[in-house]
Amino acid sequence: MFSDTTEFHRWFEQRCAANAYKVAQVPLDRLDGWSMEADSGNLVHRSGRFFSVQGLEVTDSGRAVEAWQQPIIVQPEHGILGILVKEFDGVPHCLLQAKMEPGNVNLVQLSPTVQATKSNYMRVHGGRPVPYLEHFVAPRGGEVLFDALQSEQASWFLAKRNRNMIVRTDADIPVLDDFCWLSFDQIAELLQSDDLVNMDTRTVLSGAVALRRPAVGRGAHPDDDTFDGALVRSWQQDGRSLHNTVELLSWFTEAKGRCTLSRRLVPLAGLADWSRRDGIVAHAEDRHFTVLGVGVEASNREVTGWSQPMFAPRSQGVIAFLAKRVEGVLHLLVQARIETGALDRIEMAPTVQCQPADYLTDRAGGPDPAGRPPYLDTVLTAGREQIRFDAVQSEEGGRFYHARSRYLLVEVADDFPLEAPAGFAWMTVRQLIGFVRYGSHLNVEARSLLTLLGFLPAAVREPQAVA
Amino acid sequence: MFSDTTEFHRWFEQRCAANAYKVAQVPLDRLDGWSMEADSGNLVHRSGRFFSVQGLEVTDSGRAVEAWQQPIIVQPEHGILGILVKEFDGVPHCLLQAKMEPGNVNLVQLSPTVQATKSNYMRVHGGRPVPYLEHFVAPRGGEVLFDALQSEQASWFLAKRNRNMIVRTDADIPVLDDFCWLSFDQIAELLQSDDLVNMDTRTVLSGAVALRRPAVGRGAHPDDDTFDGALVRSWQQDGRSLHNTVELLSWFTEAKGRCTLSRRLVPLAGLADWSRRDGIVAHAEDRHFTVLGVGVEASNREVTGWSQPMFAPRSQGVIAFLAKRVEGVLHLLVQARIETGALDRIEMAPTVQCQPADYLTDRAGGPDPAGRPPYLDTVLTAGREQIRFDAVQSEEGGRFYHARSRYLLVEVADDFPLEAPAGFAWMTVRQLIGFVRYGSHLNVEARSLLTLLGFLPAAVREPQAVA
Repeated sequence: MFSDTTEFHRWFEQRCAANAYKVAQVPLDRLDGWSMEADSGNLVHRSGRFFSVQGLEVTDSGRAVEAWQQPIIVQPEHGILGILVKEFDGVPHCLLQAKMEPGNVNLVQLSPTVQATKSNYMRVHGGRPVPYLEHFVAPRGGEVLFDALQSEQASWFLAKRNRNMIVRTDADIPVLDDFCWLSFDQIAELLQSDDLVNMDTRTVLSGAVALRRPAVGRGAHPDDDTFDGALVRSWQQDGRSLHNTVELLSWFTEAKGRCTLSRRLVPLAGLADWSRRDGIVAHAEDRHFTVLGVGVEASNREVTGWSQPMFAPRSQGVIAFLAKRVEGVLHLLVQARIETGALDRIEMAPTVQCQPADYLTDRAGGPDPAGRPPYLDTVLTAGREQIRFDAVQSEEGGRFYHARSRYLLVEVADDFPLEAPAGFAWMTVRQLIGFVRYGSHLNVEARSLLTLLGFLPAAVREPQAVA
Repeated sequence: MFSDTTEFHRWFEQRCAANAYKVAQVPLDRLDGWSMEADSGNLVHRSGRFFSVQGLEVTDSGRAVEAWQQPIIVQPEHGILGILVKEFDGVPHCLLQAKMEPGNVNLVQLSPTVQATKSNYMRVHGGRPVPYLEHFVAPRGGEVLFDALQSEQASWFLAKRNRNMIVRTDADIPVLDDFCWLSFDQIAELLQSDDLVNMDTRTVLSGAVALRRPAVGRGAHPDDDTFDGALVRSWQQDGRSLHNTVELLSWFTEAKGRCTLSRRLVPLAGLADWSRRDGIVAHAEDRHFTVLGVGVEASNREVTGWSQPMFAPRSQGVIAFLAKRVEGVLHLLVQARIETGALDRIEMAPTVQCQPADYLTDRAGGPDPAGRPPYLDTVLTAGREQIRFDAVQSEEGGRFYHARSRYLLVEVADDFPLEAPAGFAWMTVRQLIGFVRYGSHLNVEARSLLTLLGFLPAAVREPQAVA
């Protein structure tokens, strides 16, 4: 336990220093254990397990670009992302881990208690057992507080889902090296730092927002005409909302009915607009992302060294909710987004979710206002007084190389139109809490934002309006 | 409007008599508009639309039989099943249709206001427009009461889902030939008849159970120690339950995590254990079902004649919930069932769902107790005093030929064990009502049973125990 986050940071620095890591880029054709299949050029592991990189052909997408081909990560197994919770002196604490992932810009971030692919915990690669796994597989001793299959980055994964679990225990838990107990308040503070709380932790914690009253400690009163007051009212059970749950479910079903996106796996070797050069797979116009190889050396992982392909985005993402007070209750503008790789193709997503650099110019090099995502400019031009949080967070460092996104909450003014295009709907925090319990509703980016909003710490004050 | 169901039956007989129908079996190779693809032998329509019959290979099923091949219907489009509701003198009525479907044993049954495949309402076959469709597609005038994408028979369909909608309107609605308004109470009565309310109507009505207090009119008091009292308590919001929603969602997620079922489409022509003979596709041991062709002549359908393949089960199904009073609250034993064709492979299903004839003998002709589904014998040997309802209902008559199942609710005694195997959990009616709002939770058989239970009419009395 830490008395404060300063003490945590000291411990965290020690953990980073205690272990030796080396991550080096390696050409894909010299990646140990991995090879390109003769006909398809797909990247596969010699065990036939883990994951593969294949080609995906998308048609009738219903997006600005109707059809395209791209590399995609295929990993059909469900892993487990689990956080163990225990009360100390009546205060719930989460057991988190300082864990190296080769794709993280800073290598080590805070991960859940257990972050294991099925290959991982079945010990396909013959590594060490996964610590604390016994709390997350049946028969378990503790009480399950949250348990849902959730999707991950659908632009880069095909139908990838992980089981997100929060389990409360009363048992004595030995704290291994690299693990620590952090209270929800301490985690709330740490979520304000860039690139510290990893994506897996953020997605699991979206299941804990229900347990936590936001803006607590800031003394926000439900009657306050402040952002905090509006947030508390948005979190309340049976609070007012613009739409009821039946209407929102119907809006979601309607979006699924409208969706025509069709996809099929194709050989990685023959993708239009993509080619292998200099040991990577890259887009012809250097857009989107590259597929590259890394070699990893670590002193404290399940295995001490390995190689793997990773997806490296070309530019930083922007992931943002627009928020608006509707009759004093904070509402978020949620998008029923066509998600390339998601099992059911449509999920609830942030208002804006893209790599803005992809939209600066069209394919011929000219400006591309037509394909520009709705509300992107509203987010990018928001004044400081509208921004309720703003932090750069990392995407999953086990598959994505230096993938970072700016996560924002932008509160729009009262005169911002309440009418939204067909694919958008205003929802309260409580409604998102309701949907996140059911897998395949909120996408991973929306879950991250829900966590950032639900864990807004006491230290964050509402900025004064600049007159 | 009918003053009673006698009047309805008179009208219904007239409607059946008013139209001329002829359904004849036709060999698959002489089916107008349909052909077998050269290489695969798959059955396809010349338009490339509607649906196709292909082969499915299943491995690692996790069922008694680990791997098999079978014909399967592939129809990826979502259709609309919609019921229009309007109040007359304060009493809500549903607009239902006397509709011929070639697979119905009695040809005409009561279908929803709209029952349209996408090909249907996009008028691919150049037929007449679908009446009342405008109430179910945006922009709609009425109020949506229920709207979810729901799966259909996963033993025979691959990833088939239809949009189930209930829309309330205040508009003037002209009543076309073959359509009629029926109150919920009248529908409740009609649900007691065999083969009258079709599957599409039953699945949509599962979304109306929330609106209807079961056992109403029987004067059941929440304190009554009767089946009716236990049913009312099971339906109540915030009532007691053996498990809370978090536990049930975790149980469902766990079942998905355990599921290893893998499937891929293969040519219909080369299926192990299946062959084409005498114009049908049949199982080598005459088990399960056959694929056959029918030619249809009708005077009042969207088109006046057509031909199509259908699936014809070899025997009648049994679809049953076991029910038990737990601290006076009725609980149903729900199965997290491995559903061959379902999008996410696991759905919530009745306690028992099978064709018992398939389990009478093993493949060598001997008795097959090992593969016999759990609780099947409990259902088949239940005494009259345990049976709360028992009716033979038809499965979808648009794709299935004379497919009928016995739907039962069997109340077990107090000493029946509360402990259930891993794939089973006891749930209240209210919990099922909660899950049915989210698509892909309850399978179509469970939704039918929920409707039969939620619409139990006043006329059905609890049988006296036979001492």
